Amino acid sequence: MLTANDPSRKSWLSVPQDSDFPIQNLPFGVFLPEDDFTTIGTRIGNTAIDLSALHQLGYLDGIVLPEDVFLQDTLNDFITLGRPVWRQVRNKIAEIFDEKNDILKNNTEHREQILFPIEEVQMLLPVFIQDYTDFYSSMEHAMNVGIMFRGKENALMPNWKHLPVGYHGRSSSIIVSGEDIHRPVGQMKPADADEPVFGPSKLLDFELEMGFITTDGKHLGERITTDEAEDYIFGMVLFNDWSARDIQAWEYVPLGPFLGKNFASSISPWVVTLDAMEPFRVESPKQDPTPLPYLQTEGKRTFDINLQTFIQPENSTESKVCESNFKYLYWNISQQLAHHTVNGCNINAGDMMASGTISGPEKENFGSMLELSWRGAHTITLDDGSERKFINDGDTVIMRGYCKNDDVRIGFGEVTSKVLPAIL
Amino acid sequence: MLTANDPSRKSWLSVPQDSDFPIQNLPFGVFLPEDDFTTIGTRIGNTAIDLSALHQLGYLDGIVLPEDVFLQDTLNDFITLGRPVWRQVRNKIAEIFDEKNDILKNNTEHREQILFPIEEVQMLLPVFIQDYTDFYSSMEHAMNVGIMFRGKENALMPNWKHLPVGYHGRSSSIIVSGEDIHRPVGQMKPADADEPVFGPSKLLDFELEMGFITTDGKHLGERITTDEAEDYIFGMVLFNDWSARDIQAWEYVPLGPFLGKNFASSISPWVVTLDAMEPFRVESPKQDPTPLPYLQTEGKRTFDINLQTFIQPENSTESKVCESNFKYLYWNISQQLAHHTVNGCNINAGDMMASGTISGPEKENFGSMLELSWRGAHTITLDDGSERKFINDGDTVIMRGYCKNDDVRIGFGEVTSKVLPAIL
Repeated sequence: MLTANDPSRKSWLSVPQDSDFPIQNLPFGVFLPEDDFTTIGTRIGNTAIDLSALHQLGYLDGIVLPEDVFLQDTLNDFITLGRPVWRQVRNKIAEIFDEKNDILKNNTEHREQILFPIEEVQMLLPVFIQDYTDFYSSMEHAMNVGIMFRGKENALMPNWKHLPVGYHGRSSSIIVSGEDIHRPVGQMKPADADEPVFGPSKLLDFELEMGFITTDGKHLGERITTDEAEDYIFGMVLFNDWSARDIQAWEYVPLGPFLGKNFASSISPWVVTLDAMEPFRVESPKQDPTPLPYLQTEGKRTFDINLQTFIQPENSTESKVCESNFKYLYWNISQQLAHHTVNGCNINAGDMMASGTISGPEKENFGSMLELSWRGAHTITLDDGSERKFINDGDTVIMRGYCKNDDVRIGFGEVTSKVLPAIL
Repeated sequence: MLTANDPSRKSWLSVPQDSDFPIQNLPFGVFLPEDDFTTIGTRIGNTAIDLSALHQLGYLDGIVLPEDVFLQDTLNDFITLGRPVWRQVRNKIAEIFDEKNDILKNNTEHREQILFPIEEVQMLLPVFIQDYTDFYSSMEHAMNVGIMFRGKENALMPNWKHLPVGYHGRSSSIIVSGEDIHRPVGQMKPADADEPVFGPSKLLDFELEMGFITTDGKHLGERITTDEAEDYIFGMVLFNDWSARDIQAWEYVPLGPFLGKNFASSISPWVVTLDAMEPFRVESPKQDPTPLPYLQTEGKRTFDINLQTFIQPENSTESKVCESNFKYLYWNISQQLAHHTVNGCNINAGDMMASGTISGPEKENFGSMLELSWRGAHTITLDDGSERKFINDGDTVIMRGYCKNDDVRIGFGEVTSKVLPAIL
């Protein structure tokens, strides 16, 4: 079924060493070529591939597809078709671009309609997201935050090991990599103040997360089991859940994060399918206590994905501030989706479910400035000598992620956003 | 501008005494007539009016409208046109159905295409909702809940009087009046248990709320002021924010309500415009302390709307369990919207923002069973002699709302949903 994953396959399109996008990846995204229409596409090396042109020119014949399924502004209609179709399309693309197949390779006219240098296309938000949920599934992150705010004894809330804690976020302000954000303005209450104050957030932070994108689920009232969950998951992206710690701290009791989060979240533009990540399955951390039956999973239900965060000050070079891994998460994506729907909550194609900050056991694995600077107690020194406790205006935050073994590297590219000054 | 509000106007369509829908209301909704296409419509008395037919037959000539704006499954495109267009359409409808205007009245063929008895159409969800936010703006409700769970001294959180506390909810599970719900299943931790348990919620509740629907806002990063806010609000509906108190209690710390809420929320099908509610403007309760400048409003910025909740057991009659009023809310809708966007969060046409449970000062004003039964300490006796602490399987919960003065009654109709047994 997963012939697209054959590690020995090479493409006639050039793939630079250590590219995130060998022919074994074949992620899906939406892009706007210069002087052309928005299209759904995929990517090999540094070449963007127009799937609507590939489809119209007959290269996908044999797969049952709606005529305009790739001539869309979002992946939603394609996602609705379901995993068997995603697989057929990915396998077919792998055949078309296999180095042993010279049909398209030798057709200059078709190549001009289908292939674009990646630097000549504009990547767009890949999905229309009706609902976005953020989980809180890293035990190391929950412990760090708990210790900072409640002390070591009460660090983890009583429910934390029994269910994947989550909350609803704002869909409208999810943006694609490359879009800048403004420092948010709002109401805060400094520790030494009697009354709240108004102004730009002083404690702007990133959160290193990943998000998965679902397809259409079941009817309202019905649940998706952990065994079924992966059939409802299209793929994953890098997710920077921007946070204003001072706004969040004042507002979040008792109903949770709101304006401290909903000013922006940034995602990477290429959705990597679970199929492409198949060689990188690993087991989740052992769960003790054993969760209730509806949350139990067996075997390798998560993925070994290296994650990095960099800060690039204005007119300077980038510095790595964090190195983490998706596999550290205590709750896996099947558990998250089963929990989300256990009460009958329905899901739709394009819904986004993010992991929560992904921290690991060591200090360099911490996935937010809140943890790296330990609530501002320490200073992080960047490679250019400048110091940070949180994020400054002019800083660009870059997150990258990839899976890698001896045979292949399957990457997510990057999510990057620059922080502009507040609009007052 | 608001000639549609002329209280002396009468319609040639019959309007029963105490109807919520006199010619001064003219709400907007979406309905499916028998053997016809889904259309946007309005309502006078018990007659549903097909606006796409009215438009196609030339009755709206003179208003600049996209050709298919009423031939839609949702109001979103119409909402996007903005308040000046909403007003023109409402004023024009008022003229067409004025008792002094016999053009349509005398055209039997056109009347057959445009008018439907309300019982022969199926009301549909009026808007596509990308993002749904729930506020917590009733001081009486926040106090009641606070006293129950934290005691009188700490009832209101320190932030409560400084900002309209809110959180994001789930859009996908918002349903229209008439759709039934299943009792949600999930994880709870009974007070006397050492470990959490799995099963149907035992503490299913309604929350008496209202929701407002927005039009497109500003760019990400820009805010809407309290003075501008009403220009971005299309209208209001009744909102039943179903809640499973036992699921909520176990899950909600520290990130807020999730599965205790997102299994369903029910709304009334007719969106009543702010214009129609104009005669019922009142001042909000005095705010002490004075909020920060970005939250300040002057004059009559809320509305006098009588609200009622009824429980109808299976095969029995309905009993009123609560009588409240929208005017009790401490934070008005302009403050809610200004707060929501102060950090640059963007809004779209069709977004739903609900009030939170609307309780008032007296016991009969409490807007949830949690408060009416004081967390199960008291029993509510219904008219048929049956007793309730929370909602039983087979119960239908009905909410109604209306504004009324000596001249006119502008109502919201009702939102009604029946509770079916859990799917195990």
